[in-house]
Amino acid sequence: MTGPGLFIVLEGGDGAGKTTQARLLVDWLTRERGREVVRTFEPGDSLVGKQIRGLLLDPVWGDIDPRAEALLYAADKAQHLFAVVRPALAKGAVVVSDRYVDSMLAYQGAGRVLAVDEVATIARWATEDLRPDLTVLLDVDPDVAVHTKQDQDRVEGAGEAFHQRAREGFLTLAEQDPDRYLVLPARDSVNRIAEQIRARVDQLL
Amino acid sequence: MTGPGLFIVLEGGDGAGKTTQARLLVDWLTRERGREVVRTFEPGDSLVGKQIRGLLLDPVWGDIDPRAEALLYAADKAQHLFAVVRPALAKGAVVVSDRYVDSMLAYQGAGRVLAVDEVATIARWATEDLRPDLTVLLDVDPDVAVHTKQDQDRVEGAGEAFHQRAREGFLTLAEQDPDRYLVLPARDSVNRIAEQIRARVDQLL
Repeated sequence: MTGPGLFIVLEGGDGAGKTTQARLLVDWLTRERGREVVRTFEPGDSLVGKQIRGLLLDPVWGDIDPRAEALLYAADKAQHLFAVVRPALAKGAVVVSDRYVDSMLAYQGAGRVLAVDEVATIARWATEDLRPDLTVLLDVDPDVAVHTKQDQDRVEGAGEAFHQRAREGFLTLAEQDPDRYLVLPARDSVNRIAEQIRARVDQLL
Repeated sequence: MTGPGLFIVLEGGDGAGKTTQARLLVDWLTRERGREVVRTFEPGDSLVGKQIRGLLLDPVWGDIDPRAEALLYAADKAQHLFAVVRPALAKGAVVVSDRYVDSMLAYQGAGRVLAVDEVATIARWATEDLRPDLTVLLDVDPDVAVHTKQDQDRVEGAGEAFHQRAREGFLTLAEQDPDRYLVLPARDSVNRIAEQIRARVDQLL
């Protein structure tokens, strides 16, 4: 239970269009449905989280142990819920977050270094198992997604096979809990995707 | 098993004399026993760990969620083993660390917010349950220890009852694994404490 508010998460690989869809969803919730909306993201949307994000994504800090990396992602999630998400839900807002636990599980699983069930245990403990009311997965083929940014961070630069495994990880998570997921092909038109998200969110409001 | 090296940890409250004893032990191991020694500390003795330490101890970052705090301590431990402790042990050095897992358990337990067995599970996962060959606990009464520093960090400023509970936490951990602990009253003379530590370490060399 997320309380009087509503917790909506957008997940998917880089280039899936999460930012565009989050903006459209927030605009619609605010203007057409009159809801207070808090738009947020992981990792990094808290004062402490911004520092953690810097540690995780900036190559300047050198090699990070896989367990340390997973624990930093989990710490960011705990702080994000504490500082941003729970206060917003408590006052009845709709929280729209770009990434949440599934990203951690999909990318850590894709890295194939740590046991995913152990990472899941850490993530569930960090978040006290708070699950979104709805997770929209924008499914994107890494072959199609653009990975040509000049200044790639540590995750973006991890290679196509890694991103393919992460995609499979997202799809597996969605299959395990279909009632809470809306899986949409990211190659559809922006408007068609936005319409489908709005229809599903309207059922929850 | 810690490999060809030896892993020695100094634990105890602030003002117990860990820094002095670490220095004396390192001097003796180097000069009298001809061992390569790596002296280190937690939290913070790695490039990433230094940043984490700043997040944990500097009040400027504001309130930190208890779970985020525990996960940050655990991340620091994982990175410390990866970057400092394991490489030193692998080459046969004696590692002398000021604080390790027990500090995390004693202080988190003293905070009484989180279940200590859950924190222990996180700490054991972070460290792959690497246990020291010897933990020297310098037992100090918080009534006696000096807490008059002007610029106290978040842990130092937590109050006497907190530090009393942490002391009890350390003693409980020592009781649970007596073969691996040497508990010494911190009010003994510096030389007498140093002699007892040397005698015990000599058995391990």
